[in-house]
Amino acid sequence: MKNRITDLLNIRYPIIQAGMIWCSGWKLASAVSNSGGLGLIGAGSMSPEVLRTHIQKCKAATDKPFGVNIPLLYFQTDEVIEILVSEKVPVVFTSAGNPAKYTSYLKSKGMKVVHVIANLKFALKAVEAGVDAIVAEGFEAGGHNGIEETTTMTLIPMIREKVSIPLIAAGGIASGQQMLAAFALGADGVQIGSLFASSFESSAHMAFKQAIVEAGDGSTALMLKKLVPVRLLKNPFFDQVKTAEQSGVSVEELKALLGKGRARKGMFEGDLVEGELEIGQVASTIHGIKTVQEIFNTLILDYQSAKQNQLPEINI
Amino acid sequence: MKNRITDLLNIRYPIIQAGMIWCSGWKLASAVSNSGGLGLIGAGSMSPEVLRTHIQKCKAATDKPFGVNIPLLYFQTDEVIEILVSEKVPVVFTSAGNPAKYTSYLKSKGMKVVHVIANLKFALKAVEAGVDAIVAEGFEAGGHNGIEETTTMTLIPMIREKVSIPLIAAGGIASGQQMLAAFALGADGVQIGSLFASSFESSAHMAFKQAIVEAGDGSTALMLKKLVPVRLLKNPFFDQVKTAEQSGVSVEELKALLGKGRARKGMFEGDLVEGELEIGQVASTIHGIKTVQEIFNTLILDYQSAKQNQLPEINI
Repeated sequence: MKNRITDLLNIRYPIIQAGMIWCSGWKLASAVSNSGGLGLIGAGSMSPEVLRTHIQKCKAATDKPFGVNIPLLYFQTDEVIEILVSEKVPVVFTSAGNPAKYTSYLKSKGMKVVHVIANLKFALKAVEAGVDAIVAEGFEAGGHNGIEETTTMTLIPMIREKVSIPLIAAGGIASGQQMLAAFALGADGVQIGSLFASSFESSAHMAFKQAIVEAGDGSTALMLKKLVPVRLLKNPFFDQVKTAEQSGVSVEELKALLGKGRARKGMFEGDLVEGELEIGQVASTIHGIKTVQEIFNTLILDYQSAKQNQLPEINI
Repeated sequence: MKNRITDLLNIRYPIIQAGMIWCSGWKLASAVSNSGGLGLIGAGSMSPEVLRTHIQKCKAATDKPFGVNIPLLYFQTDEVIEILVSEKVPVVFTSAGNPAKYTSYLKSKGMKVVHVIANLKFALKAVEAGVDAIVAEGFEAGGHNGIEETTTMTLIPMIREKVSIPLIAAGGIASGQQMLAAFALGADGVQIGSLFASSFESSAHMAFKQAIVEAGDGSTALMLKKLVPVRLLKNPFFDQVKTAEQSGVSVEELKALLGKGRARKGMFEGDLVEGELEIGQVASTIHGIKTVQEIFNTLILDYQSAKQNQLPEINI
C-alpha cells in the first residue's frame, strides 16, 4: 500500500514506533524499520555520544529509513541536532517543545521533520513551523501528555478538521482494530508505543515488560499535572507521587520527590518499587511479549480481518 | 443493514441516543426513534409522574421502539420500574448502580435490558446479571464517568475481548468517522450523547446548546472525582468546583457547593454562570445546531464516505 505517510517517510507500512525513553534504542528501531515500519531511537534518555552510537548501530542493522525522537525541552538540543545532521538521520520527530526553532534547519539538510502534539493549538503551531507531518497523541498515551486531556477519539477528528498535512494518531493503539479505528478517525498513520516497549527487542528491563503484560483496567493514571502531565503505571513510587499530590505539595517538592534517574531505575533497571514506569492505558490489552516481526504480522492480519468483517454497511 | 444491535432493539440503525438529564425528553427520544435509531427518555431528571407523561407522549409521537434510561442510584427506583412495566416500555437502559436487582424482573416482562458501564469489572457484573447488551462509556463522555478514566479507544477492545454479548460504544462519538472507529474497535452499535443534546429537539436550553457548539479543545474536564466523576463544560460554576477541589475540601463541603438543582439551572434553564453543564469532549467537534433527521443523514453519509475512502488496504 501507499499513502501520504508511507510516501513521506519512504516506508512500507504507515506504522511508526514511538521514540520512548529507556525502551527504544538501535535494536528496537532497526527491527521496526526492517519489518517495514519506521523505527525511532528515543534520544530523551541518551547523552549525545550515546545517541551517536545508537544511530551508527541502527544504520549498520538496517538499510531502511529510521528516525530519532528528540524531546526539545530536555536536552543539549543544539549538540544533538548537529549529530543528527552529521549522521544524516533521515527523519526527526520532535516533541515537548517549540518546533519553530529547528524545523527549517533540519529540512534544509534534507531531513523529514515530524512534530508530536497533544492539542489543537500546538498542532497549528507545528504547521506554521513547516513540519512535514504531525503526531497527535491522545490522553490514553503513555509518558508525557497534554493538559487538555483530549482522547484519541476526539483529538484526531478535531485536528484533521483544521490541519491538512499528514497526521499520525497515537495513544490507545496496540492492535489492528485500533489501527483501523485511527484511519477511520482521519489519521494517515499510527504511532505505537506501549506494544513496542513490551517487545523482545525493546531495551526495557524484562521486569518492566512483564509489568506491562500484567497491567489491567485502571492500572495507569495521568499524574504530575502540576509539572508536566505523564501517564504512569501504578506501583509504590506512583503511590508516593499520588500521596504527595493529594497533600497539595509545591512544584519544588514534587521535583525533589522525583529526583534524578527514576525513569531509568524503573524502566531500564527493572525496579518496580522505586522506579517510574511510563506506559499507556492500552497496556491492559497487551498479553504477551513478542518479537517485532510477530507484532507486525499480528497488527496487519488483525487490521485486514477487522476491515473485512467488523464494519457493517449502513445505508440511508 | 442488520446486526446484533438492530435485531435486539428492533431498530433500523445501530445508533442509540444517550439518556441525558434535562436534554432527552419525549420530543428528542421520539425524533430519534422516528429517524431509525433508538431514542431514550432520560429519567434521571424526572419525577415518576413526569416520566410517565413523557413515556405516554413518546408513544403518541412514534410507533417505533424507544427506551428509558434510569440511573439506579438516584431515584425512587421501585416506583419508576413499575411505571416502565405498566407502560410497556420496550427497552430499559440502566446506569449508575447494580444491574443485578432489576434485570431479571424487567426481562420477565418482555423488556430488553441494557446496562451502562465504564470499566471491565462492571461489564462482567452486568453480563452476570443477564443484561441483553452493554454500553461501554469512555473517559471522554459527558456526565458521569468511571474512576479508571479508560478511554473509548482502549475500553471497547478491552471489553470486547472478555464479553460476548452485544456491545455499544459511547464517549467521543459525534460523526460518521467516529461511528466507523467504534465498529473497528469491536462495538456492535454506538450511543451518542452530546450531538443529540445540541439538536433542536433536545429539551436543553438554547443557551446551553449554543455553549456546546462554541466549545473547543480543552473546554471540558472530568471533575468531582471524590464524589462521582462527572465531565463538565468549563464555566464559572466549574471554576468554583475546581477551586474547592484544589483546596482539598471534604466530600460534605463539595456536596454543599453542588447543592440542589445545579444541573437543571445550567442545562434546562440556561444559566451558564451558576449552572452545572454536563457534556462530552466531543463537543469541540460539534459546530451547529441541527434537527435529529439532519444529524442522522450526516452521520450515515459520513460513515459511508469514511468507510469507502479512508481505510487503506494493508497487506503483508
